[in-house]
Amino acid sequence: MFSVTVRDHMMIAHSFHGEVFGPAQRLHGATYVVDATFRREALDADGIVIDIGRAADALHAVLGGLTYRNLDDEPGLAGRNTTTEVLAQVVADRLAEALPAAGPTGLAVTLHESHVAWATYERPL
Amino acid sequence: MFSVTVRDHMMIAHSFHGEVFGPAQRLHGATYVVDATFRREALDADGIVIDIGRAADALHAVLGGLTYRNLDDEPGLAGRNTTTEVLAQVVADRLAEALPAAGPTGLAVTLHESHVAWATYERPL
Amino acid sequence: MFSVTVRDHMMIAHSFHGEVFGPAQRLHGATYVVDATFRREALDADGIVIDIGRAADALHAVLGGLTYRNLDDEPGLAGRNTTTEVLAQVVADRLAEALPAAGPTGLAVTLHESHVAWATYERPL
Amino acid sequence: MFSVTVRDHMMIAHSFHGEVFGPAQRLHGATYVVDATFRREALDADGIVIDIGRAADALHAVLGGLTYRNLDDEPGLAGRNTTTEVLAQVVADRLAEALPAAGPTGLAVTLHESHVAWATYERPL
Amino acid sequence: MFSVTVRDHMMIAHSFHGEVFGPAQRLHGATYVVDATFRREALDADGIVIDIGRAADALHAVLGGLTYRNLDDEPGLAGRNTTTEVLAQVVADRLAEALPAAGPTGLAVTLHESHVAWATYERPL
Amino acid sequence: MFSVTVRDHMMIAHSFHGEVFGPAQRLHGATYVVDATFRREALDADGIVIDIGRAADALHAVLGGLTYRNLDDEPGLAGRNTTTEVLAQVVADRLAEALPAAGPTGLAVTLHESHVAWATYERPL
Repeated sequence: MFSVTVRDHMMIAHSFHGEVFGPAQRLHGATYVVDATFRREALDADGIVIDIGRAADALHAVLGGLTYRNLDDEPGLAGRNTTTEVLAQVVADRLAEALPAAGPTGLAVTLHESHVAWATYERPL
Repeated sequence: MFSVTVRDHMMIAHSFHGEVFGPAQRLHGATYVVDATFRREALDADGIVIDIGRAADALHAVLGGLTYRNLDDEPGLAGRNTTTEVLAQVVADRLAEALPAAGPTGLAVTLHESHVAWATYERPL
Repeated sequence: MFSVTVRDHMMIAHSFHGEVFGPAQRLHGATYVVDATFRREALDADGIVIDIGRAADALHAVLGGLTYRNLDDEPGLAGRNTTTEVLAQVVADRLAEALPAAGPTGLAVTLHESHVAWATYERPL
Repeated sequence: MFSVTVRDHMMIAHSFHGEVFGPAQRLHGATYVVDATFRREALDADGIVIDIGRAADALHAVLGGLTYRNLDDEPGLAGRNTTTEVLAQVVADRLAEALPAAGPTGLAVTLHESHVAWATYERPL
Repeated sequence: MFSVTVRDHMMIAHSFHGEVFGPAQRLHGATYVVDATFRREALDADGIVIDIGRAADALHAVLGGLTYRNLDDEPGLAGRNTTTEVLAQVVADRLAEALPAAGPTGLAVTLHESHVAWATYERPL
Repeated sequence: MFSVTVRDHMMIAHSFHGEVFGPAQRLHGATYVVDATFRREALDADGIVIDIGRAADALHAVLGGLTYRNLDDEPGLAGRNTTTEVLAQVVADRLAEALPAAGPTGLAVTLHESHVAWATYERPL
C-alpha cells in the first residue's frame, strides 16, 4: 500500500454549541494545518499515487472555500458544530468531489488545531 | 473513521536489563513526548470523538503517575524493562481504565523518545 | 548569555482593517503557538534563568486573558489591528508586568500563526 | 499491535520522465527525511519490537547506498522514475532484505521530501 | 524589535569541490526548507513589519529561480560551492533586491538541509 | 553574519536540589535534543562556516560523554544542579575545547527538554 500526503492550512473563526465545549462556546478561531493523505494499492505508470502538485492544488482550492471566514455564517455548515473532527470530514468530502474517480482509493484528512491536538477523518475514494 | 489526538510529556529515569541494550543498561532517562489517539466510527451528537479538554486531562493524569520518577523503583513496573514500547502500553492501558466505556472504540499511544525514534501501541477500547 | 523558552497556545477570532490584508479583512481566526524566551546574563544560585514551571504558568495566565475570544470585541485591543506582530508585543508586555523585576533581563515572544509564518517581538525586562 | 520508528535522511539528485512532472523533469534533487516503522503483534522477551540501535543501523546502511548520488545513474534504478513513492518502496524492500526473518511482521517507510509533502509504502515482513 | 518570518522550500541538485566535502563532492541534491525573517524596529501604520502575503510571494519568486535545477549549471553560481551557507546568502541578497528600500531594516535567511542541519545568513536591508 | 547548526541528542538521569524544582527534586530523567550553532563573520575558502560532518562528529563526541548516565554520579558535575541551562553551558564549553581555535567565532547550544521547553547558552569561541 502506498500513500502521498500534502500539507496546507486555513485560518477560520467559529463558535461551538454545547456545555462540553466550555469557553469554546464563545466566538474564537483556529489555524488548521491540514494534511491530506491519498492511498492507493499500486502506483500508476508514472510511479506515483497522485501528482503532488495536483494534490496540493486541489487541497488549496478546497481550503480556499473555508479560510478567512467565520464558519458560523457559512450556509453549508449552518447548524453544525464545526469541530476539528467535523471539519476534517468536510475537507475530505469536498476533496473527494474535486478529484476524478480514477487513481487513489482512500483518503485521510488530518487537521492540526495546535501543537498539542489534532483530528483525522478517513474515507474511501 | 474519526480520531482525535492530544499530546503531553513525561520525564523519567530508568535502566534496562539485557545485553541488547548496550549503554542503556546504565541508569539514564528520557523525556517522552506522548500522543494519545482516540478512534471512533462516528461522531457523537456534539460532533466530537471525545472532548479534547477531557482527553488532555485524562492523559495528563496518567502521565502524572509516571513523570519525575525513577521507574526502576515503581512497584507497578518492577521486573520489567520499561522500554518505549512497554511504556506506550502502560500509558494506553491506564488511559483505557481512566475513561468510561462509552465513546471511542480504539486507542493508540505513541511515545517519542527523541527526534529520531518513537514507538506506538494500539488497542481496542 | 542564557535563555529559557516555554511554549503554549491560544485560539482567537479577529479581523483586520486595511487593504493590505486582503481576505484577512473578514472575520477569521488563528491558533497562535506562543514561545516566550527569557534572557539573562548569568544563572541564579539554583542554576536557572527562571523556573520553567513558573514561566509556563505566567505565560498560560497571560494567554488565558486572550484565548477563546473575538479580539475585535476586547476593550484593551480596540482600534488596533491585532496582527501577529502586535499580539506578540501584547503578550510580551503583559508577561513583563506579571513577573517581578528581579531575574531575567530580556524577553522575546514568538507567535506562530501557521507552519509557514510567525512573528517575534523582543524587549528588555 | 506495537511499532517502533527510527528516522534518518539521504540527499540525492534525480530527474523524472513524464509531462505530469512539469519542472521536475529537469535534473534537481531532494533531501528525504526517512522514517522506518517496524510493526509486531507482541513484544519479545526484552520488551521490544526491534532494538532501536539495530534498526537505526540497518536504515543508515540502506540509505548509505543511495545518498550523495545522482539516482539517474544508479544501475538498480535505471529506467524508473525515482519518485518519493518509488523510493519509499526501494528503501523498504532493501531494509526487509537486510533484516533477518524473525521479529517484526510489518514495515512502513515514509519519505518526507519537504515540510509540505511526504509519501509512505507499507509491506509485510 | 519586531520580526516576521515566512517559510517555503526548493529542491536542487549540485556537487561540491574540496576534499572536506567527502561524498558530497559527487552530484547529489537537497530539499532546502527556507525561512526568511524580516526585522524592523517599529511597526508601520497597519501594525505590521511587512505584509506576510507579500513577503511569502517575494520568497517564492526568489526560490522559483533556483528550484528544480542543477545549480552546477547555473551561470550566476558558476565556480562557487553552493553550500547551505552560500545559498542562504544568495537567497537573502536576491530577496533584498526584490523588495523596495522602505520597511524592514534587517533580513535573515535560514536554509534547513535536513532535520539535523541548517545554516543562516543575516544582513541589513 | 553566517551560522551553521547541527542537531543530536542525549538521554540522561538526574535530580535537582532546591524547593523551586518541586517534583523534579526526585530522581528523574530527560532526553535533550541538542542544537549546536557555530557563528562566523565570513565563510572560508570552501564556502562554509565549519564542515557540517565535522561539527556533527564533535557534538556527538561531547554528548557521548554525558548520554546514558546518571549525572548525579558524574565527577565533573558534582554539587551542581544539572538544569537545562547548566547543561547547555557544559555542552558548549566542552565543544569549544574540542574544536581548534581557527574558524567560527561564536557558539550557541540549545537543549530541548520537551516539545514545550528549551534553554540556550551562547558564548564566543
